Formats: sequence, structure tokens, C-alpha cells
Amino acid sequence: MDRPETKDAGQRLSAEGKPGSTGADTLCDTLLAAGVDTCFANPGTSEMHFVAALDRKPSMRCVLGLFEGVVTGAADGYARMAGKPAATLLHTGPGLANGLANLHNARRARTPMINVVGDHAGYHVALDAPLTSDIDSLARPMSNWVRRVSHGTVSRDTADAIVAARGEPGGIATLILPADVAWGPSDAALVTPAAPRRPRVPSEAVEAAARALRSGKKVLLLLGDSALLSDPLEAAGRLAEATGARLMAEQSNRRIARGAGRVDIPCRPYPVDLALKAVEGVEVMILVGARAPVAFFAYPGKPGSLVPPGCEVLTLAEPGQDMLEALEGVASVLSLPASVRAKLSPFSPPALPEDEGALTPRAIAQAVGALLPEGAVIINEAITSGAEIAPMTASAAPHDLLALTGGAIGEGLPMATGAAIGAPGRKVIAMQADGSGMYTVQALWTQARERLNIVNIIYANREYAILRGELANVGAGAPGVNATRMLDLGNPDIDWVTLAAGLGVEGTRVETPKAFSAALRAALSREGPFLIEAVI
Amino acid sequence: MDRPETKDAGQRLSAEGKPGSTGADTLCDTLLAAGVDTCFANPGTSEMHFVAALDRKPSMRCVLGLFEGVVTGAADGYARMAGKPAATLLHTGPGLANGLANLHNARRARTPMINVVGDHAGYHVALDAPLTSDIDSLARPMSNWVRRVSHGTVSRDTADAIVAARGEPGGIATLILPADVAWGPSDAALVTPAAPRRPRVPSEAVEAAARALRSGKKVLLLLGDSALLSDPLEAAGRLAEATGARLMAEQSNRRIARGAGRVDIPCRPYPVDLALKAVEGVEVMILVGARAPVAFFAYPGKPGSLVPPGCEVLTLAEPGQDMLEALEGVASVLSLPASVRAKLSPFSPPALPEDEGALTPRAIAQAVGALLPEGAVIINEAITSGAEIAPMTASAAPHDLLALTGGAIGEGLPMATGAAIGAPGRKVIAMQADGSGMYTVQALWTQARERLNIVNIIYANREYAILRGELANVGAGAPGVNATRMLDLGNPDIDWVTLAAGLGVEGTRVETPKAFSAALRAALSREGPFLIEAVI
Repeated sequence: MDRPETKDAGQRLSAEGKPGSTGADTLCDTLLAAGVDTCFANPGTSEMHFVAALDRKPSMRCVLGLFEGVVTGAADGYARMAGKPAATLLHTGPGLANGLANLHNARRARTPMINVVGDHAGYHVALDAPLTSDIDSLARPMSNWVRRVSHGTVSRDTADAIVAARGEPGGIATLILPADVAWGPSDAALVTPAAPRRPRVPSEAVEAAARALRSGKKVLLLLGDSALLSDPLEAAGRLAEATGARLMAEQSNRRIARGAGRVDIPCRPYPVDLALKAVEGVEVMILVGARAPVAFFAYPGKPGSLVPPGCEVLTLAEPGQDMLEALEGVASVLSLPASVRAKLSPFSPPALPEDEGALTPRAIAQAVGALLPEGAVIINEAITSGAEIAPMTASAAPHDLLALTGGAIGEGLPMATGAAIGAPGRKVIAMQADGSGMYTVQALWTQARERLNIVNIIYANREYAILRGELANVGAGAPGVNATRMLDLGNPDIDWVTLAAGLGVEGTRVETPKAFSAALRAALSREGPFLIEAVI
Repeated sequence: MDRPETKDAGQRLSAEGKPGSTGADTLCDTLLAAGVDTCFANPGTSEMHFVAALDRKPSMRCVLGLFEGVVTGAADGYARMAGKPAATLLHTGPGLANGLANLHNARRARTPMINVVGDHAGYHVALDAPLTSDIDSLARPMSNWVRRVSHGTVSRDTADAIVAARGEPGGIATLILPADVAWGPSDAALVTPAAPRRPRVPSEAVEAAARALRSGKKVLLLLGDSALLSDPLEAAGRLAEATGARLMAEQSNRRIARGAGRVDIPCRPYPVDLALKAVEGVEVMILVGARAPVAFFAYPGKPGSLVPPGCEVLTLAEPGQDMLEALEGVASVLSLPASVRAKLSPFSPPALPEDEGALTPRAIAQAVGALLPEGAVIINEAITSGAEIAPMTASAAPHDLLALTGGAIGEGLPMATGAAIGAPGRKVIAMQADGSGMYTVQALWTQARERLNIVNIIYANREYAILRGELANVGAGAPGVNATRMLDLGNPDIDWVTLAAGLGVEGTRVETPKAFSAALRAALSREGPFLIEAVI
């Protein structure tokens, strides 16, 4: 080809017919040509030409969210499983704003995503019509890349967004699409985005890590990003077996390969005191796609950095670099014999919990571990109750675990929705706290419409339990009237089964381990979404 | 008093006891001393010291929203009715982001509001912990005033925020409260914010308006802001009676006094073509708390400014100025005799709709007009279906109408929630489209918890009806598969009665005018919230 960067846009008919020839068509065609074929959307008037263009592209799967937090959370979950970005369609500044919290989480997860945010026609902005807002200022904090699409460079702008999103590491690319660019003429030709280049790991980093592992010092390999997929994890496991180094994952992660046949790696604890204890005595910390650990929040008199005093910190691989190459490179420098194998989890799921007794987070996790189908995807947004999940599923069937990476609650149900679309044929289990679940409960409706195989487990403790703990940490004593009013989710209790029914999702309420196990077994054997309200 | 600006902070005990002596206490005490005694809240860990401080102030009414869009929308509705600002408590950047859409609406309404957004301790921000984000960049587009609270100037910063919020016109003041300022020591003394000063209307503006009204030209008085309260509205009505000038209100307004005994003023239509027709032939447009009209959206080939070509535009009063003084000033220059009276609506509510036939938006509005109790507050977020409300309630019992001012959908249910708290003893009727209602459906739970007298009427047309119209305007023809998937809210239908029940609010579904009238009558006679799903 003499023009390797472009290809013909194909047949472009008049704007009245289908297919059309608008800027919006160019944007969609550029996405589709790059394999971005899923669009989570909640459009408005300024996006109608984009909707009309999508209507001319049956190969684009359009998924409606009834609120933009569903849209962006689903796009995050989709990309974590599909390994490629989805597009989102959002309506002007307020629509973007509604999606920002889950964009924040996705940015922290380094998830690739391409947002298309409609704006007024360029010449209309100066009139300061009611919906006008500073979209750029809103987009920047939660985006790695922001650009206003221009007439004539629609395809180039879109291709650049794709490159920015699916780079290594991945990122949030936000295209602001003025209505007059959307309804203006299509570009003359489509631009094909360059394939992502995975940055090489410097050999000095590999050698430094190898030296540290040979040094006899207490070494911790702290893994994050794609180092937690099964192959790099196994490579890290070999290093640990050979050298006695410990493995640890970051506190919350985009995706961890877990269960039988995988290396069981603990995640860094959330509470500061436990997190400090977990790294006590470590003399060298080697970062593999991870960042040096910091406290989630500051507390009076407690440290912010969670690297032990005097501990040396080495970076073996930055997020986005080739983790397998890096870890195998270290093994090679260390001349590990092939006989050194990582310690992989056996297939040894827990027994079902005892039928009697209280329904506890532990019993729930135990039943999940016992009944987990192979290839399941677990979403963990059970902030206080979810700690039992990892130990109870370590030797369950092989599965993936997706966590809340940015601390912005309200992503579990949307992420499950997107993960089910990104991983068709796999069962998704959303383990969801009630308080955070209420943030984006509208996701249940999308699960019903798309008939997704998701089991939503709601931990109904009817309080913001984590905040009760944090209030106690503050030394405020027992909560009084006002604190109780802000931390307690009762009065009235949310009836999750009824709520889900209103959104088209069947469900059941359980209060004993026996009933939970039975409900989970039944839910896993059916098609479509289901909700279990687990009263704990 | 020798120090008129400050007063003693009162007894300040140790941080372990109640009351406490933290920066957060100073912030709360400054709010309370200025009469800001209602706090809509959804706190997180970084706000725990603020929660602890609120717990020491039983005179602060804390109202929990299960999502921040509820919090900010309720604060808007509260201030529109109470005539003074509420505080909000939001958790870091993502919590603020969740509340931005309704802050956008409140900013467009010029509603006074004081947001307290918790942030990490100042020294913790540089560590870029997972929840860290650029809060300033997020706050600015939807705030009139933003400041980070500092050690030692907590009360001054808070007082400045109060001044900024309740100035004339009112505005959104956002205080970013670092956790270490919240947990740090209290200020030595409290600062009392200066009382708002209402800017005077220049006499030249009054005289120019009087000249125009005497000129024999076709004059339109375009009213907005507080010109739509009953006294200024009546003053404008006198000018219209005396001079033949027409009255019109802005397209959507913070609050309009309507019904029997008030001047019936039409709002400028939303569709561009109708809006142009409504001002056709106008030679002088006099702005009274209004802005020169612009199109809500741009459309190819249609104008953005909706001022007729050649029409002169005069500003009698800017938003925030004294509308009554301005309008009476004009009457005085014109030497209107006392015998000139405004035309006030009679008390002549419509009859109930015919029992038979389809349940239409018109039948719903007719029943509301027929049964409206005196002093009711109507919230209109029925984007396409709500057009019938104004004509059907023009001669109903006197009431207030609150509208969506910024076009960011999802404010109706929260605004109703806040309005009920801001106007105790008055019945609130939320006329709510289903699509926008789903954005912040969590508001129903707060209505239930606070036992608010709200009748929520859901127009269940099961589509984004306005977007179907807009797609047709685009010339896209009949919606295909993808457009239908993004505009249609069916499959599954949302069951609003069940949804409300899950959130603790009783309701009923009606499909005929007879059933609607009966349901509305019953709902208005009971205490606490109720929901009517009106299938149209």
C-alpha cells in the first residue's frame, strides 16, 4: 500500500440515507476498523447525529445504561475481560460528570477506554446555553488524554484516542465531539491507529532485581498491573520458590488470575496497621508493575508511605511493560533450572459452610469457593465484607478476580455488567456491599436487558460498615444521632429483592448459610441475571 | 460589641469529648451561627472528623442521600424553598463528581449552596493514593466560588463561602476540606459572614425601560430569577396592563409563583421554532432578571440567539438585583395610577378529566390542577410530557413551580426531597419523567426515611421520548436497531411501583384518568411519600 496509514472510508452515501457520510460516521468507522465494536451509551440531544451514525453500523454493539456511572463502570469491566477498549457515549458535561467516578476507578486500573462526549456545536458554546459547561476541565482529572474533535481530522483524532487508550499502560482517552463536527461532512479517508508498542524492560532493571534476589536480604516482589495474569504470576512464583522472596499483590487490582493451577498471591491489606505489619522486615521491595505502597487515607500520627524505613525499592517493570519478559529475564540471569517450579494452588475448594449458624461474610465466601464454576469472573466491591473472598477461593476452580481500584464506590454492579459482555460464556459473580451497590443500582436493568449471566450477591448489613470503623478510629466514641443518620442504611431497610424485581432481575433473600448455598447453586445453574440478598 | 465580626466560639472541650475543638467543629459552628442548619450528606473516610463534629451539633439536621446526585439535588430544592442555603457533605473528587450534574442545575438556577468536599490531608496528596484526584478542576465548572480550607482560617474561609453562596445572585460555593484541617485545632474565634447586599438597579435602566414601554413599540418583558415571585410578577403585570407590553418567563426557572391570585406568565417554549414564533414581531425586549434568550441546542441552519433580528434588548434588572424595586420604579416613572391593576388568575381549577379514555399527559395535568392543594410545590422534570402542566394549573390553588434549570436530567426526585424539607407543611408533587427519574431514583429512600409529604408522579412512557423527537429532527428516519436500543426504555419495562417499594415508598400503577384521579386524591390526603406510576 502506498498510503499505509489510511484506507478508503468505503461507500459514503448522502446524509439522508444509510450509510451516511457525517463526521459521526467517520468516528464510528474509525473505532470499528480498529476493533472497537462495543459502545456503552447514554446519549442526549447533542449526540443524535452520533446515534444516527451508530444506527448505520449494525456491527457496533450498543448497550444502554440508565445512568452514566453504569456506562463507564461497564466499559471498565468490559475492557478488563475483553483485553481491548470499549467506547462510551456520554451527553455533554453533566453526562460526563455522572460517569467520572467510575472513570476514576478505570484510570487507576489503567483500563483502556475511549469516551465520546458530545458538546454543543462550536459556535454555540459562546452563547452559554443552559447545558454549557467546561467539559475539558471536567474531563482532565479522570482522563489520561483529552482532545476536542475537529472538522476534517475526525479520523486522526479518533485514531489518536485509540492509541492513547490501548497504549501500555492503558488509559482513559476522552474525545469531546462538538455537534457540528458530528453532523459535518465525513473525513476523506480513515486513519488506522498504530498498534500499541509494549515498552521493553531495561536489562539494568532485570540485573538489579536478580542481584537483590541473590543478596540474601529479605526481598518482597510487589506485583501489580498485568503481572497478576497467570503466566507472569507463575514466573514470579518460580523466583519466589528459588530465592525465598515473598510475593504480594497491590491492595486492589484490575484483574488477578486465581484458583487452581495459579500462584496464590496475597493482596496488600487495606488497614494501615496491617499493611505495615505485612511488610515488616522487608529489606528490598521489587516493584513489578506495582507502585511503592502508600496508605489509602492519611491518619493522624501514622505514616503515608508504607515502605518500611531503610527498605530499598527497586523497579523491575513499570506498569505496561512486559511483565513476563521481565520476570523470565530475572530467572535467566539467576540461571534457574527448569526443575524449579512455582507453587500452584491445588484444586481443593472449601466444603460448603455448615447449614446452621449465622450467615457471615465468611460463610458466603466459603459457599462461593465451593460452588465456583471454572472460568468464573468475581467482582469484589464488598468493602468490609469482602476480605474473606480471597482465602476461600484460593483453591477453587480457576477464575479471575476484579477489584475496585480507585476507591470510588459504586462500580461493582456496572463492572459485572461490562465483564459479562467482555467475557461471553463465563459466569460473573458480583460480590457487592449494599451501600456501594445503591450508587449505581440502575446496572441491574442493563443486566436484564442484555440477559447477562451474572449472580449479584448483595451483602445486606444495612450500614456503611467501613465508616463505622473509621469513625471509631477517629476516637469519636459511639455514634450519636447525626453520625448514625449518616452511617446507617436502615430505617427503612432497602429491600433488594423487590428493588431488583422493579428493574427486571429476579432474586431471593437468604438469612442462613443453607439458604445461601442453595440460592447460589440455583443461580449459577440458570441463564440471565439473578440477585441474592444475603442478610448479614 | 468591640469586635463586631467575630464572636466567641463558645466552650471548646478536648477532642475526645463532646463538644470538640477541631477545625471541623469550627466549620460546623460557623455554618450554624449563620443559620445554615441543614446538611445533605454522603460522607466517606476522609470526612469522619467532620461527621464527628456534626455529631456534636444536634441543631444541624443531617440528611443522608444514598448517592451524591441526591445530595446536591436536594440541597438545590431546599434552598429554592427555604430561601437560604443548605450545606452538602461530599467525599473527595469522585463524591463531588457524582454530585456535579445537579450542581450544574443549581448553578444555572442561581441557587445558594455550600459544599464541603473532603480531601486527603494536605501532606498526603503528593503520595497520589488511589482516591486522589484534582478536586479543584472538578469543582470549578459547577461552582461560582472554590477555596481550600486552611489551618487557622477555617471560620473565615467558611464565612466567605457563605457570603459567596447567598450573595445576590446566589451561587455554588465549594469548600475543599483537607482531612488534616478537619482534625486540626479549631480556630480561636468564629467569623460572622456579612449579610448579603442586594445591588441597586441603576435609575438609567429604569428610565430606559419606561421610555421603551411608552414608545408605542411592541415590547416584551422577559422575566427570570426572583422576578417570578409573586410581588414582582404582579408589578410586571401592572406594567403589562398599562402599556400593552407582553410578559414572558425564561424557559425554565428556579421558582415561579403560580395559580389563583398570581399573574399567569407563559414560559418561553423549548423548541427553537416555537421559541422564535413566540417572540416574532417583538421590537424591544426588556430583561428583568433574565438573560437574552438562546437556543438550548444548536441545530444546522437554525439561529442560536433567539432575539428577533433588529429587536432592541434592554436590561432593567440583572439577576440578583431587586426586581420589585425595578418594576415599581418603572411604574413610578410612568406615573401609573393605583387603579391600574395586574390581571391575576381567578381560582378556577379545571374539572377532573373524563374518567374514560387514555391516560395522557394532559389528563394527568388536568387532575393535578383540579386537586392541587393550596401552597403546594410542583417540581416539573417531565421533559416531553410536562408541557401540559402550566396551562392546567394556571387557575389552580396558589402554588410554586420549580423547574430543571440546567438541562442535566435526574434532579426531579432529589429536588422534591429537598423542597419538602425546605418547605415543611407544604405538599410537594414531583412530576417526573421515567428516563430522568431513573438517574437519581435513590432519592425515594431519603423521602421514606425523612417521611416527607411528596407525591411522586412518574410519567411512564418507557422511552427517552425527547430523543426520539430529536432523532427525527436530525433527519435520520425511523430508528433502527441501535438507535432503538439507546432511546427505548422497555425490554424490560421498569416497574416503578415495585422499585419504590424496594426503597420504602408505597405506590400504585394507574392506566386510566379515573384511576389516576383517585390515586392522586388518596396520595394527597396521606402523610409521607407516595408514588404513582402513570402509564402513558
